[in-house]
Amino acid sequence: MDDILAYIDGQFEGTVARLQAFCRQPSIAAQGVGMGEMAELVHGTLEGAGARAKLVPTAGYPVVVGRFEGTGPKTLMFYNHYDVQPPEPLELWDSPPFAPEVRDGHLYARGVADNKGNLVARLAAVEAWLAIRGELPVNVLFVVEGEEEIGSPNLGRFAEDHTDKLRADGCVWESGYKDTKGRLEILLGVKGILAVDLKVRSAGRDLHSANAAIVESAAWRLCWALNSLKGPDERVRIPGFYDDVRQPDGRDRAMLAAWDYDETGQLAEFGVDRFVLGLAGEALKERLLFQPTCNICGVHAGYGGPGIKTVLPAGAMAKLDFRLVPDQDPYDVLRKLREHLDAGGFADIEIEVESPEFPARTDPDDPLVAAVVASARQVYGAQPVVLPLMAATGPMYELCQCWGLPAVGAGIGWSGSRVHSPNENVRLQDFRQGIQHMALLIEAFST
Amino acid sequence: MDDILAYIDGQFEGTVARLQAFCRQPSIAAQGVGMGEMAELVHGTLEGAGARAKLVPTAGYPVVVGRFEGTGPKTLMFYNHYDVQPPEPLELWDSPPFAPEVRDGHLYARGVADNKGNLVARLAAVEAWLAIRGELPVNVLFVVEGEEEIGSPNLGRFAEDHTDKLRADGCVWESGYKDTKGRLEILLGVKGILAVDLKVRSAGRDLHSANAAIVESAAWRLCWALNSLKGPDERVRIPGFYDDVRQPDGRDRAMLAAWDYDETGQLAEFGVDRFVLGLAGEALKERLLFQPTCNICGVHAGYGGPGIKTVLPAGAMAKLDFRLVPDQDPYDVLRKLREHLDAGGFADIEIEVESPEFPARTDPDDPLVAAVVASARQVYGAQPVVLPLMAATGPMYELCQCWGLPAVGAGIGWSGSRVHSPNENVRLQDFRQGIQHMALLIEAFST
Repeated sequence: MDDILAYIDGQFEGTVARLQAFCRQPSIAAQGVGMGEMAELVHGTLEGAGARAKLVPTAGYPVVVGRFEGTGPKTLMFYNHYDVQPPEPLELWDSPPFAPEVRDGHLYARGVADNKGNLVARLAAVEAWLAIRGELPVNVLFVVEGEEEIGSPNLGRFAEDHTDKLRADGCVWESGYKDTKGRLEILLGVKGILAVDLKVRSAGRDLHSANAAIVESAAWRLCWALNSLKGPDERVRIPGFYDDVRQPDGRDRAMLAAWDYDETGQLAEFGVDRFVLGLAGEALKERLLFQPTCNICGVHAGYGGPGIKTVLPAGAMAKLDFRLVPDQDPYDVLRKLREHLDAGGFADIEIEVESPEFPARTDPDDPLVAAVVASARQVYGAQPVVLPLMAATGPMYELCQCWGLPAVGAGIGWSGSRVHSPNENVRLQDFRQGIQHMALLIEAFST
Repeated sequence: MDDILAYIDGQFEGTVARLQAFCRQPSIAAQGVGMGEMAELVHGTLEGAGARAKLVPTAGYPVVVGRFEGTGPKTLMFYNHYDVQPPEPLELWDSPPFAPEVRDGHLYARGVADNKGNLVARLAAVEAWLAIRGELPVNVLFVVEGEEEIGSPNLGRFAEDHTDKLRADGCVWESGYKDTKGRLEILLGVKGILAVDLKVRSAGRDLHSANAAIVESAAWRLCWALNSLKGPDERVRIPGFYDDVRQPDGRDRAMLAAWDYDETGQLAEFGVDRFVLGLAGEALKERLLFQPTCNICGVHAGYGGPGIKTVLPAGAMAKLDFRLVPDQDPYDVLRKLREHLDAGGFADIEIEVESPEFPARTDPDDPLVAAVVASARQVYGAQPVVLPLMAATGPMYELCQCWGLPAVGAGIGWSGSRVHSPNENVRLQDFRQGIQHMALLIEAFST
């Protein structure tokens, strides 16, 4: 494999340039910015590399599919997404989010870690094989969707409509990071999600706050409704919410125990001085991966400017996300949320649902896991950290688990990548290693 | 008095033009817009009318004082303010807030009801006396501050520094309205206020919401803190909050009983189908005037845009106002709020205080009240509604009650004046009657 690794090194400057070109193109699914252009860019790049590529339409943004035929019988799928998170708040970026900039060995841009860097790395690995060997030992199938950051509302249907063409033996998931001590994390599952907007109306218009004595407040009613969902003990109060939460089994506990979670480093990274409920050690790790959440992404009502404006707001809204663990079902949680609000006197609160996703897990004994771990050891010179789940979400169930396909996450991010935040970045050295890792994985997976 | 009333009629067009000129000048204290210009305009107008006028500096915006010497020994003070509420949200105005427009007998502009219309009306009444009689039967003292809408932070100090010059026998308060059935309301007191911003920080920056499993949330902590202040029973939970709330006495209950509060009209005006807690009748009226409030003027954290942004917000803030009733003390309430938050585990929540004001009441048997009521009966042809308090706030304690000066509110607004809201307006017919009322009051008060 030294020839391929040398080729990757020789091409590295050009690969960074391609990543910068990808990041220069905004592609914000939530805001509908640059999506068509980005899909074309991915499609053209796959075709240019020799894939049979296609823009597959969906009810939303198209999925870009690219297939490289290999000599062996197996098929390796790479799942990525070409959309990115909104870049706001813009004022907190040190360089503009869509003007990728290298500073001190880091490349800064919205989407560089989540997830354009992984897409470019995987393609560079395939190109290196083709350039040096003229062929691939496995079929490689790129599935690059445009709606991951808005909850992949159409990927399940896409997978259902194209089961034949999506047949594969393993999938490398879109994301992956080094931990705060620089060790590669390999992820065997994702949490699910239910994201909802809660909307309350009270008066017909904002009123003078003197009327607060006798007119109900949308802001207060939202506050009370939220309070009925979770209390300061951090336990979700929706009846039945925890019914389907599966406890970690023996293998899970072994993986958790082997996970040297860098509490001090993470506290510093988060900018806090303690974890929730004062947790530490095994309890902290277990909570991070095996417990569901109920998070307020945003809450807004009334005046937020400087000084006083004594107003009784007519409307209030909150955006929540529930991260769900196996075997929770987002549709079941939604039903329980509705029933709970109704029972608490909040039947008038409107729930708007954003694309639910199921949690998913891959069997730790699957051969794909062994191949990803073995190739990582070669590149990174150390045993990677294998985690049974990750705290974040993706459509792994919809694309893979639902069809029996194992999926494993490994990627080029690091603990300071600031995904979804200002100054998102990757380290160029991680990017280079990520390309090497994927090239070695293609070899390891083929046998 | 017919000669004076006829003069008021003859001059009415010019008086409306002056009111439009006053409204054309923005004067938003909260945003620091146009304040110097407006103070000069008021000062110049008072001088032009023959007053000895002065811009009295304070730590904030100056107070404009204008004194007309009269023949009698008594002094009548008119308290007004030249600042207005911020005009936002601009998109809900049918005509621009600072481009006063007459439509269908209404004059629309920010500040026209609260409080420039009353200022212009009172000055027009004085001018009519001077034009027709050549003299006033009482001394008239205009006190026009520029910070009423931001809580009059410097008026108490101003009154303290100028007690001699502010000596008077009665004060006509800045505001007043007709009720939904068109009856003039006369107000004998104001609620006090404590307005605070509550600020919570958790992480050093907004985080990916996957971290919600293990990192405390500023948004949740604010929600829990708010919930600890008031529950769905609408009762404030701060220990001792109600200690100093004085129950209405016999005279208060008589005034409440005589008050034919138009519940149906108010519900329609507010755009709601019931009052808080389903209240009606005497209980509703008593709550409106004699119960303090804890209102959320605004609450903001995290993402509020379209679609999903799965973020764990690092900061959250709420703007609250407590309307206080006799004998509550805003500084005492602030201390209790702080203690309550501390005791509830919210010692880290920062409280920023905006200019507290005390509640105030005038004795219903004061001669000023009789004079205002008698002159109102003449102009409006019906018994006015006398209310022991109003639900809103003003610096009546700081300017008047603290120095033993009785104060009574009566003005040109109506129930649809939409003060503090888009499309603020007065009816020109009410404006005309308000001028007449003040002219007759000068006569009634002099005897």
